[in-house]
Amino acid sequence: MPELRQNFITKEWVIIATERAKRPEDMVVRREHKPLAGFVPTCPFCPGNEDKTPPEVMRVPQPGDGAWKVRVVPNKFAALARDQEPLRTIHRSRRTINGFGVHDVIIESPQHSAMIALMDDEHIAEILRTYKRRFDELSEDPRIAHITIFKNHGQDAGTSLEHTHSQLIASPVISHQVRQRFHEVLRHYDEYGECPFCQMIEEELSEQTRVVMVTKNFVALQLFASPTPFCTHIYPLRHMATFGDISAAELSELAGVLRAMLAKLYVGLQDPDFNYTIRTAPAESVGVRYFHWYLSIIPRLTRVAGFELGSGMFINTVLPEAAAQFLREVKLERALGTSTT
Amino acid sequence: MPELRQNFITKEWVIIATERAKRPEDMVVRREHKPLAGFVPTCPFCPGNEDKTPPEVMRVPQPGDGAWKVRVVPNKFAALARDQEPLRTIHRSRRTINGFGVHDVIIESPQHSAMIALMDDEHIAEILRTYKRRFDELSEDPRIAHITIFKNHGQDAGTSLEHTHSQLIASPVISHQVRQRFHEVLRHYDEYGECPFCQMIEEELSEQTRVVMVTKNFVALQLFASPTPFCTHIYPLRHMATFGDISAAELSELAGVLRAMLAKLYVGLQDPDFNYTIRTAPAESVGVRYFHWYLSIIPRLTRVAGFELGSGMFINTVLPEAAAQFLREVKLERALGTSTT
Repeated sequence: MPELRQNFITKEWVIIATERAKRPEDMVVRREHKPLAGFVPTCPFCPGNEDKTPPEVMRVPQPGDGAWKVRVVPNKFAALARDQEPLRTIHRSRRTINGFGVHDVIIESPQHSAMIALMDDEHIAEILRTYKRRFDELSEDPRIAHITIFKNHGQDAGTSLEHTHSQLIASPVISHQVRQRFHEVLRHYDEYGECPFCQMIEEELSEQTRVVMVTKNFVALQLFASPTPFCTHIYPLRHMATFGDISAAELSELAGVLRAMLAKLYVGLQDPDFNYTIRTAPAESVGVRYFHWYLSIIPRLTRVAGFELGSGMFINTVLPEAAAQFLREVKLERALGTSTT
Repeated sequence: MPELRQNFITKEWVIIATERAKRPEDMVVRREHKPLAGFVPTCPFCPGNEDKTPPEVMRVPQPGDGAWKVRVVPNKFAALARDQEPLRTIHRSRRTINGFGVHDVIIESPQHSAMIALMDDEHIAEILRTYKRRFDELSEDPRIAHITIFKNHGQDAGTSLEHTHSQLIASPVISHQVRQRFHEVLRHYDEYGECPFCQMIEEELSEQTRVVMVTKNFVALQLFASPTPFCTHIYPLRHMATFGDISAAELSELAGVLRAMLAKLYVGLQDPDFNYTIRTAPAESVGVRYFHWYLSIIPRLTRVAGFELGSGMFINTVLPEAAAQFLREVKLERALGTSTT
């Protein structure tokens, strides 16, 4: 029989639709893939074409030669613009803010078709360090209210440029959704005196059925009320409100966990399109006891339809427990923390 | 320059991204369409195959012969099940409800490839009357908390069956999103003593720039903070909290407005995939002064990517004012209220 499950953190209900249930292996993507390329002469993110992007914000150099491992450039088609002030206008029902903000592109590798699932862990750690450096820098700007770091992999995930990259958008407001989630967890904290994420993580670790992997400082799991098939969350085990709190050692460890989870999806579901995003408290809330940052990986295996749009409620056709078991059983050639270089 | 705009009702911020702006005509869908079919022998919704659906819940007969104009049947792959009680379980962080609920399919026409954009208004009125009859019937059930009526047109909108149909899901909970929106409008009402929808509609009517059409009892417009290109809302002009409040005359008039708006999208954007959904207060809130039902049409012209998933904030690349003008200028062969039959 179908079951409604409530997300403990967000309070959102999800329908786990067993009548239309799919086995995890039914979600395997069987499609034509383009051949992978190391270098594409026309690609603005490939080495040698550095002048085709706006002036560089940051780079991680390749030791020795003049080459780079990771580059950060402003998005040429930025959603928000750096060169204005976030002025607010209120006129009757119309509220606007000038579109001030920062929209970075993080070019993850000089290799055109590189994939995090197949990179060595040290290179992934450089990408994550780049995220953190930009997060820290932009958090200093009093005009910035919130920072979203995200990646789009594949057409169904909204990619427009093929060369492997992620993005960062720093906005002058905290979105309504982020604010609402804050309210919910604060309410929980005030009532029970405990971070609801910490409580949920502890319960998941003791129950094990939805856990995919655990390391010294991180756990990767399927949510009890997972909204979509194989949506995977990676939580730090110690309480931290913002991504900026992560230590250097934890960053290196997270690289291995992220690679392992993306590799399990890559192998198990045959390179599905996916997004990932870092859900963090804004920098101003660095010390709060009620929010806990995490990284959310969302494989794009299904389409949002009218019911989801009209109610905000999702229908998930794969049992989270079955998805977790499926991912646990995907064997990887490389164990955690090893590297191909 | 880009601009952030806040939805007056939901308080959600949207980025109107003029740097990556598209002219409305750039959104025209240019793709291969399947040939239209009147009758498909293998289709469970085509006449003669009535035994391939679960037993009928309701039908609108064709006067004279034994044929039908509209049929309602239980969804064979229902997300929720009629034959159980909505029992709630709370165990530490896990909250569940047995998947009780109703999931109807409304087969809109015996014609396999019929489209509301091309139907005669009286037939559309029969479909809307069917929605209302099911809404009213299910609203009587104390186990039902909320009813979502929606339509998926085309693959990108999540359709799995081609034969023209819409759906209804009646759930034992009010979704978190619906509840949150209720809170926001109630807060507005308590502060200003006015329905925020009524205020917004009045302002839009006086400003005109985002209005696509107005009839005696309805207005169709683009929101000031429209989250996606060509997202179109149809509001009743008089204050009504639930869809169940609509009068017989208003239902007939709505049929013409819905047809005209879908026809403008069909002609102007060349049959885009779309969803529509009726956003109504739950039946228990029938008389409330702070909520106002509406019908929302969402053309599926863009993909949700990592930023939207990670922040809940949308980036809209088409100015709502330009979309409204584009739709106003789409000429239809049939004026409002006329019919081909």
